[in-house]
Amino acid sequence: MKKPFSLSEVYRLLEPGPVVLVTTARAGRANIMPMSWHTMMECEPPLVGCVISNRNHSFETLKATRECVINIPTVELAEKVVNCGNTSGRRVDKFKAFGLTPMTAVGVKAPLIAECYASLECQVVNQKLVAPYNFFVLEVVKAWIESTRKKPRTIHHQGEGFFMVAGRTMHLSAPITSRAGK
Amino acid sequence: MKKPFSLSEVYRLLEPGPVVLVTTARAGRANIMPMSWHTMMECEPPLVGCVISNRNHSFETLKATRECVINIPTVELAEKVVNCGNTSGRRVDKFKAFGLTPMTAVGVKAPLIAECYASLECQVVNQKLVAPYNFFVLEVVKAWIESTRKKPRTIHHQGEGFFMVAGRTMHLSAPITSRAGK
Repeated sequence: MKKPFSLSEVYRLLEPGPVVLVTTARAGRANIMPMSWHTMMECEPPLVGCVISNRNHSFETLKATRECVINIPTVELAEKVVNCGNTSGRRVDKFKAFGLTPMTAVGVKAPLIAECYASLECQVVNQKLVAPYNFFVLEVVKAWIESTRKKPRTIHHQGEGFFMVAGRTMHLSAPITSRAGK
Repeated sequence: MKKPFSLSEVYRLLEPGPVVLVTTARAGRANIMPMSWHTMMECEPPLVGCVISNRNHSFETLKATRECVINIPTVELAEKVVNCGNTSGRRVDKFKAFGLTPMTAVGVKAPLIAECYASLECQVVNQKLVAPYNFFVLEVVKAWIESTRKKPRTIHHQGEGFFMVAGRTMHLSAPITSRAGK
């Protein structure tokens, strides 16, 4: 079961660079798109920048609704992720086709994906770089996590169908930060 | 020894989301800053978006010179990465302090870091989101790789001094792409 997750901790989920599944919805039809081109832009409120190509079905929906959910899958879902990337929401209901379960979100119309260990409800807050680069700035307005999942192994795209699977975690005494004086 | 690396393949290095070391230089003084807030924005020519806080010494240098190098370290350098993140270039020559070796770049004044397995020479091409978000768009103009390194294990920041170390690589038959019709 997904539980609320602190917005100030969202960067810890996305900063390592996992492949995510972006859900959008319009006129009662939901879609899913894998995405790796994203970055944190602010910790709190959490802002996320991402590129969604204007050749993708999700682009028009995101532009029109200004809402989406960023869902984070683990390695167990890798094949479904690839399937979502190789089909178009114009023709396929990917939830049905690949056995994924939509869950109602709280703050946006796009659904969460039940099988993903974390889900971030997002609203578009800046579109200035959409025209030149298809780059959207999103604010995460509500975050959810599967709290019972221990050591979720995210996947990280290396191109051409290769994925790096998250390995061990190490702790180094002092925190790294890009936020003061480097 | 670093060899030239194809610009069209650069996304394969950055898309998995590794911590990188950004080098900048002005008036003969070079600096190093760890960064995790970056994303690919275009494959070819390779464009990279990144957030560098205006509280960081590197921010002013990047803004003034419009040049930097993105260096990709592996787990063997993790402690040096953290040290670079916990000191300021205003006071410390990080190359000397942490035993890193500057190498002359071809297209920019900022140095490559010899110990990093890949280095990407970059020029700033868009600053429209610098004022609101400290977000720079960079074009990679020259790329280098340590071609003898097998299975470089990158590190991926999870916040608070925790790092995920890149694990195994898996291949799924069909390529994932965010570039057409999803």
